[in-house]
Amino acid sequence: MSFRIERPEPHGGRLIERVVTDPARGKKMAKGCPALDIKPTLDENGVPVRNVYREIMSVCYGFFSPVEGSMKEAELARVLKERRLLNDWIFPYPILFDVSEEDHKKLGVTAGDRILLRLKGEPFAILDIEEIYRIDPLEVATKTFGTPEDNPEVVKEAFNKKHPGWVIYKSMHPVIYAGKFTIINEPKLRPPFDRFWFPPRKCREEFDRRGWRTVIAHQTRNVPHVGHEFLMKNAAYTGDSEPCHGILVNAIIGVKRKGDYPDEAIVEGHEAVNLGGYIKPERHMVSILLWDMRYGNPLESMLHGIVRQNMGCTHHMFGRDHAAVGEYYDMWATQILWGKGIPSFGFPKPITEVPYGLKIRPQNMLEFWYCPKCGEIAYSGNCNHSKEKQKFSGSFIRGMVSEGVFPPPVIFRPEVYKVAVKWWKVFGYPFVTPKYLIAREKELEVDLPHMDV
Amino acid sequence: MSFRIERPEPHGGRLIERVVTDPARGKKMAKGCPALDIKPTLDENGVPVRNVYREIMSVCYGFFSPVEGSMKEAELARVLKERRLLNDWIFPYPILFDVSEEDHKKLGVTAGDRILLRLKGEPFAILDIEEIYRIDPLEVATKTFGTPEDNPEVVKEAFNKKHPGWVIYKSMHPVIYAGKFTIINEPKLRPPFDRFWFPPRKCREEFDRRGWRTVIAHQTRNVPHVGHEFLMKNAAYTGDSEPCHGILVNAIIGVKRKGDYPDEAIVEGHEAVNLGGYIKPERHMVSILLWDMRYGNPLESMLHGIVRQNMGCTHHMFGRDHAAVGEYYDMWATQILWGKGIPSFGFPKPITEVPYGLKIRPQNMLEFWYCPKCGEIAYSGNCNHSKEKQKFSGSFIRGMVSEGVFPPPVIFRPEVYKVAVKWWKVFGYPFVTPKYLIAREKELEVDLPHMDV
Repeated sequence: MSFRIERPEPHGGRLIERVVTDPARGKKMAKGCPALDIKPTLDENGVPVRNVYREIMSVCYGFFSPVEGSMKEAELARVLKERRLLNDWIFPYPILFDVSEEDHKKLGVTAGDRILLRLKGEPFAILDIEEIYRIDPLEVATKTFGTPEDNPEVVKEAFNKKHPGWVIYKSMHPVIYAGKFTIINEPKLRPPFDRFWFPPRKCREEFDRRGWRTVIAHQTRNVPHVGHEFLMKNAAYTGDSEPCHGILVNAIIGVKRKGDYPDEAIVEGHEAVNLGGYIKPERHMVSILLWDMRYGNPLESMLHGIVRQNMGCTHHMFGRDHAAVGEYYDMWATQILWGKGIPSFGFPKPITEVPYGLKIRPQNMLEFWYCPKCGEIAYSGNCNHSKEKQKFSGSFIRGMVSEGVFPPPVIFRPEVYKVAVKWWKVFGYPFVTPKYLIAREKELEVDLPHMDV
Repeated sequence: MSFRIERPEPHGGRLIERVVTDPARGKKMAKGCPALDIKPTLDENGVPVRNVYREIMSVCYGFFSPVEGSMKEAELARVLKERRLLNDWIFPYPILFDVSEEDHKKLGVTAGDRILLRLKGEPFAILDIEEIYRIDPLEVATKTFGTPEDNPEVVKEAFNKKHPGWVIYKSMHPVIYAGKFTIINEPKLRPPFDRFWFPPRKCREEFDRRGWRTVIAHQTRNVPHVGHEFLMKNAAYTGDSEPCHGILVNAIIGVKRKGDYPDEAIVEGHEAVNLGGYIKPERHMVSILLWDMRYGNPLESMLHGIVRQNMGCTHHMFGRDHAAVGEYYDMWATQILWGKGIPSFGFPKPITEVPYGLKIRPQNMLEFWYCPKCGEIAYSGNCNHSKEKQKFSGSFIRGMVSEGVFPPPVIFRPEVYKVAVKWWKVFGYPFVTPKYLIAREKELEVDLPHMDV
């Protein structure tokens, strides 16, 4: 019996790639279409909470394979009920191109029309409209994340406007244009994001180049403290007959909560882990996903599994409170989804065992804490010194950082902390502020080449 | 697809159990047989190097399943050539009941006869002789371990009398009684070994009791320093969808080299790791195997795989220089055997992929060292601080211990070191001496109930 684990195929069987790299062909495809400028989704206070351009990028570069565009009404209904696409493959979230009533009136398009989407004043993508329908954003928001009544296995509290993912869906416009996206003018990633841009095909080629057969993915929206580094290093001991060859950090880049670190500090902070030699650069690689995080804990973990399987990873690590905010979900909801399933979400078995499910393997991990008796960052599955243990408290660490205290090396590697300080100087504050959000949504992570259509 | 890993069946398909627990039946079976007192095998200086009673125990309690006794001439030949039993299952070492010409003459037995083997003056086991033949001990010793000419993939130096495993075979008597062993008077393990005695059936029951489905085995003949503890803790992050439920330490108890720790300190030293809370007792269990270690690196690892598969483990960790002494073998020979195979030993593929091979999974690990830059025991697959690293040197640590220096906690956990000191006081020296070997071979690890036959 061979225990060898091979790279999984993409979710749905093949990578979606909907990027036209020949500008002449791109121009031709967009010629004569009514144009619409992409604008950020704003919350009730006018603060940007999402930009659909990130979803278009993630769809067209294949991160979200097999999704090819904005969902039709029947597909939205199925995703909300069963977390499956119409082709049966599992998928957690509505992907929707929403338009205001005002813009819809102005455009005057119907099913069968093609529209040109402009970004930062330049042509960016086309959307071939297959269907136009209306949603109740509040209903979509609530059904996406679930309720304590309908999903008692994992939902502990009703979602509300304190939850940034719920706010994203709640803030959408009511008119949905369903249809496939095609990028016709390839954006250039801006520094520092450009060197972390590995769309699935390129990422798989990079794994080949590095000789990585087994790769474990690490989800992040943080500048890594030592606890994160230990989760990464220790989860990566799984593999097949030896530890995983590679660790892929995949950072979610997009709108964040106030109090999250700025994206620039996140990617460079992770890079500092390998530049500092804590994990060899030959074994550690930082990449990004453009996505306005929904903080959907188990649902978010399913999206993470899809994205990283598409990128070619064999394993995905999951800790406590994966991609969670507040206490809406059980803190172990993600591991419940991957370990036994969540029937009310449509999964009576782990999502790697259901039909049309995932092929990436979970590595479900407990917590790490600092134990002065062990003299190390200890794993809660091993360390029995419950009196002595000192938990990593994200809010404690944030508090220390915002007070300007240089944290001890047992909490932050100095190389990593210097990155946080570097971007603090740039943005005037170590964490995301409304001002940062507004500035970032003007600049985004890309520039677009000039294109006359 | 389910990634769930289930407990493997015993090697050969069923557990061998050849222990008569009813004394009346035992007496009856031994009645009227010619008796032979088991004596230790002595090297050329008269120092005990082996006691065949340990092999009889390991065979009859099923540790060596599917082996049932002393090998016939054809089976010996096949083991030496192909490392397979006559029933095709892989097995690395000759298991032989050897008798001196003098004892053989005195006994006057032939094939078909049953003999009673006495231990510490009491009836112990019977051997049903199926064949009597002669060996050339030098040839058996050399063919067992291989030569640089015949096994160039892994053998670097010709074996000689500095190698304790080679000495064991070289010191055997020339007359072999082949046939099945049956224990007819069950020995009682002496303290401290009694609480670590988990023969395969009992061990599997203990795993059930503890709710351990996935268990990784750790081979030891050492009082664990912190480097050993880190190998154990970190290798155990493998599993299926979560780290292994349990870590089984299986200590080889029997004749050791001078300079090894005494067996009593080894088992209690490992126990101190869990009593000290460095690995929770719920996740860590110490057990023993009675065996005079052959130090056969890849061959020894195969025996370890067989024994721990029989005990019910799903995984086995292997580090550098596994069960090695000197530089006879390539330091990674064990991982070569489990990772790609050693054709000249009969294995063109990993020993989990050949017919009639093993079902336990290897976890092949690199080295651990102390890195002052990382501030921790670091894994060589991660840490890039090659200038700063400080390797664990077994001989340096032994030197420090024998000088009476209390080692720093980064080398030895204080609870573990206290165990070494406790037995040092008992035996007058921290390591195995010829005096210890001679005394131990009189006492052994067992007492036998009185039985009149």
